[in-house]
Amino acid sequence: MMDQRLIQQLEKKINYTFADLSLLEQALTHRSFKAKNNERLEFLGDSILNFIVAEILFHKFPALSEGDLSRLRSDLVKSKTLSDIAIKLDLGNYVRLGEGELKSAGWRRPSILADCLEAIMAAIYLDSNLETVKQFISTWFYDLIENIDPKKIDKDAKSLLQELLQAQQISRPKYTIASISGEAHAQTFDVLCEIEKLGIHSTGQATSRKEAEQIAALRAIDMLKKIKS
Amino acid sequence: MMDQRLIQQLEKKINYTFADLSLLEQALTHRSFKAKNNERLEFLGDSILNFIVAEILFHKFPALSEGDLSRLRSDLVKSKTLSDIAIKLDLGNYVRLGEGELKSAGWRRPSILADCLEAIMAAIYLDSNLETVKQFISTWFYDLIENIDPKKIDKDAKSLLQELLQAQQISRPKYTIASISGEAHAQTFDVLCEIEKLGIHSTGQATSRKEAEQIAALRAIDMLKKIKS
Repeated sequence: MMDQRLIQQLEKKINYTFADLSLLEQALTHRSFKAKNNERLEFLGDSILNFIVAEILFHKFPALSEGDLSRLRSDLVKSKTLSDIAIKLDLGNYVRLGEGELKSAGWRRPSILADCLEAIMAAIYLDSNLETVKQFISTWFYDLIENIDPKKIDKDAKSLLQELLQAQQISRPKYTIASISGEAHAQTFDVLCEIEKLGIHSTGQATSRKEAEQIAALRAIDMLKKIKS
Repeated sequence: MMDQRLIQQLEKKINYTFADLSLLEQALTHRSFKAKNNERLEFLGDSILNFIVAEILFHKFPALSEGDLSRLRSDLVKSKTLSDIAIKLDLGNYVRLGEGELKSAGWRRPSILADCLEAIMAAIYLDSNLETVKQFISTWFYDLIENIDPKKIDKDAKSLLQELLQAQQISRPKYTIASISGEAHAQTFDVLCEIEKLGIHSTGQATSRKEAEQIAALRAIDMLKKIKS
């Protein structure tokens, strides 16, 4: 059992009083601490968060495409965003860790804090209902969502290329690694991007596969524009 | 506007009568047909489905780990499962497609049917409430969920390895491509799996990167077992 004053402090901080305190305790328990940890709650909480954020964005931005909504959501539910919120709620003070994690200051680890926040979402949901947890999530994400400027959605080149092709009913480009060179710690990736239907072949070279693909996609977009114009 | 008899036929088939028929029409409209298509609804429906299936599994299998729940859910919400349900509901008869898709028999394409089913989930949700769509999803997935045998959950080698390491508080293995050889259409991938903390290095070779990683993971599990025993 956790210290009751500590628990009450946290309840005050998140502004919710649990009927079943064991849910909150479980949500705060990292797997390094003991068997009944927060991983199952995190699984459920993650799906709740994804759904609620999807719904908020769906209604708030009726003109945005599915691709843009997806991108906005990924950005909102990513670990960094969640750990920032967790830090504001001071969750690091309340998470229960095993010895190893304590020694390595696990209460400061963003992934532990983010998982803990998702588990708390599930705990609130199980203790109350969807409407209640929706209110909490809306509050925690309020500033982030209010600050979204739909005109400034940053598209990465691969997504943009795919959407341009989709609009023309052309299937998605194929990315293949043409070669990898260099030592294991300093590799260079040569990537090929192919749009068969249009005869477009572009290449990208970078120190990561992901980056090389972005470069190849960017070049393919240029080629696509030349074909169109 | 769609043919009203057709719409009523489908409502009968799915056993739900829409207050706002335009939602159902939009859910049935593929992007090849016109601008107001089902993609946004599919985005929302996908998140509803993921949440509801997560919740069903969470309650039904209280002893399963987060990893097992995740795997079970991926299997339930994958495109193939969804298109099978869509076929049972005869959605191919009702989906609205553009000319190109009509010519290529798009109404039989599993991805189109799966997306359409997810869009219908969102349409039902927006037309009613979460409880209602939960009932529909529970019904559609009933047999699949009832037939799950938690003892027979098939773990792939990479997931299994990660869980074994996690239990020992060891961070996840690193997979790198050591080399790719052969022509573009018949490549062989050499993959390296490294668990630094344990000094484990294993390799896998196959015609796909994914498969090569599985082989390398399997060998790493063998090595891990030898260390332990």
